[in-house]
Amino acid sequence: MIEEIPASQLDTARFIAEQVAAIREAVGEGTAINALSGGVDSSVVTMLGHLALGDRLRTVIIDNGLMRDGELERTVALFGALGVPVELIPAQEAFFAALKGVRDPEAKREAITQTFYRDVFGRIVRESGAQVLLQGTILTDVDETVAGIKRQHNVFAQLGIDPEATFGYRILEPLIRLRKDGVRLVGEALGLPAEVFNRMPFPGPALAARVIGEVTPERIAIVRRATAVVERLLAGCGAFQYLAILHEDHVTGMREGRRAFGQQIEVRCWDSVDAREATPTELPWATLRRLADQILAEVPEVVSVTYNLAPKPPSTIEAV
Amino acid sequence: MIEEIPASQLDTARFIAEQVAAIREAVGEGTAINALSGGVDSSVVTMLGHLALGDRLRTVIIDNGLMRDGELERTVALFGALGVPVELIPAQEAFFAALKGVRDPEAKREAITQTFYRDVFGRIVRESGAQVLLQGTILTDVDETVAGIKRQHNVFAQLGIDPEATFGYRILEPLIRLRKDGVRLVGEALGLPAEVFNRMPFPGPALAARVIGEVTPERIAIVRRATAVVERLLAGCGAFQYLAILHEDHVTGMREGRRAFGQQIEVRCWDSVDAREATPTELPWATLRRLADQILAEVPEVVSVTYNLAPKPPSTIEAV
Repeated sequence: MIEEIPASQLDTARFIAEQVAAIREAVGEGTAINALSGGVDSSVVTMLGHLALGDRLRTVIIDNGLMRDGELERTVALFGALGVPVELIPAQEAFFAALKGVRDPEAKREAITQTFYRDVFGRIVRESGAQVLLQGTILTDVDETVAGIKRQHNVFAQLGIDPEATFGYRILEPLIRLRKDGVRLVGEALGLPAEVFNRMPFPGPALAARVIGEVTPERIAIVRRATAVVERLLAGCGAFQYLAILHEDHVTGMREGRRAFGQQIEVRCWDSVDAREATPTELPWATLRRLADQILAEVPEVVSVTYNLAPKPPSTIEAV
Repeated sequence: MIEEIPASQLDTARFIAEQVAAIREAVGEGTAINALSGGVDSSVVTMLGHLALGDRLRTVIIDNGLMRDGELERTVALFGALGVPVELIPAQEAFFAALKGVRDPEAKREAITQTFYRDVFGRIVRESGAQVLLQGTILTDVDETVAGIKRQHNVFAQLGIDPEATFGYRILEPLIRLRKDGVRLVGEALGLPAEVFNRMPFPGPALAARVIGEVTPERIAIVRRATAVVERLLAGCGAFQYLAILHEDHVTGMREGRRAFGQQIEVRCWDSVDAREATPTELPWATLRRLADQILAEVPEVVSVTYNLAPKPPSTIEAV
């Protein structure tokens, strides 16, 4: 049982000092490594590790081919401006090879986890000689994994898996007692820009979580373009999270006066405090119409656009 | 080229007299038969045939297992009250057998067409000895079939198919020069009740057009329950047409605190004059929420409900 630190009781300065000390103690005279995704959790861990270890921390960002348009480049530039060097590792082929033919959502998550920890990042960690891996697991990840709702990619000890035996390195999780609201406060206290500490949640499997059925470079390209439209049009709408999902079902449509059997994009936009419960945002009709028009104009493979109406539960935030 | 009679130029009394005379001339001393679905087109044809031929017209209604909750029984009762006897023919097994394993939308339509004309209704017609089959084809059916947008079940001559050689009987199409608005005027002039002459369009393949992927009794039962909710909640909303579609894609959801991989219902509600172009009805959010809540409550296999945002074109009214 992990003891939660609620955001309301969090002393960020003290929390940062304690975690920096804990990282220094765990790493000793050695080195640590971490993988940054650009999300708030891994960004905060990167800053904590940087404060604790300076250049004895190596931070990599893995290009798994599943990220949104331009986001890896923006993250590298942003941390560069903060004086934190981040290494961009191209690994698209390994991930698409592992995902080929995989359709079940849990099998997709597992393929990504295995490719990440055992193949791509695992190899980098082993070759780096680092003794410690810093990781941004938060308490909600643990809860949902233990409850069997969703398999998070970064929870091992709670499932009885020994990462040192399985993967060859020790994992340190400085944020394990926090929920997302607490992590955001620590991020702000660490001097991260608001676009990072207030960043919208984005799933570990990235755009692979936004594709129902098989994940291929072509299908990721479609959902990436739809995602860019949704994020552009809904930026500043105040919602907790918004996303585009590419369905596997094809539906009848018309293009240039002829019958066309095309694809469907589902838009979800959520009001929520902490993702445990959520309701669809009651977007104005002008916005809903613009979402459909822009997706249909910019993604010609698509002939149908829908908006999610179901709350969580019984829905979940993501579809995969 | 068929010459259209626009609703604005339609003299309903004259049209009825002309069609009654044409039916009498075609049938001569013989008999005719027609299949009623309960829709406005086949209802108007039934009344025209009844006026022309009295008890020399045999009207059957085929239970293909794909109709909405209680609609066949309501139609039989309604025509009974008008003095028109209608025979209910159970044929669910033949249709589900023909649809087994069929996933492509055109192949599904073809399976239903062949089962209807060649097997079930074709056999009834041949055994009846009727020389003429009355059918409710309208001009929009012809247009869309010729344009290749959608294969209507009741258009043969336009596709170069000779029904007498292919199916063994002559087809008469009294409504072929009208569009839906004209048919409704004729229905009103014939004394049909408003619930018939203003009835919302419903596709020939019935609920099979509302199921993406394979059509099975179980999947029809799910979409039938969702359709009942949608029709109950949207009755009187003033829209041209509203419908529920069962997707084949499964999505992650939660039931009783555990992860559940469930089904998705898409709701479509259209504003349109004649179905050639259509836009999603801008339903109020209270209605959208109630649609989701009621479908999720009454159809527990479903964990996700969406609302269509795409206009026609590039969407079509139906998804299959």
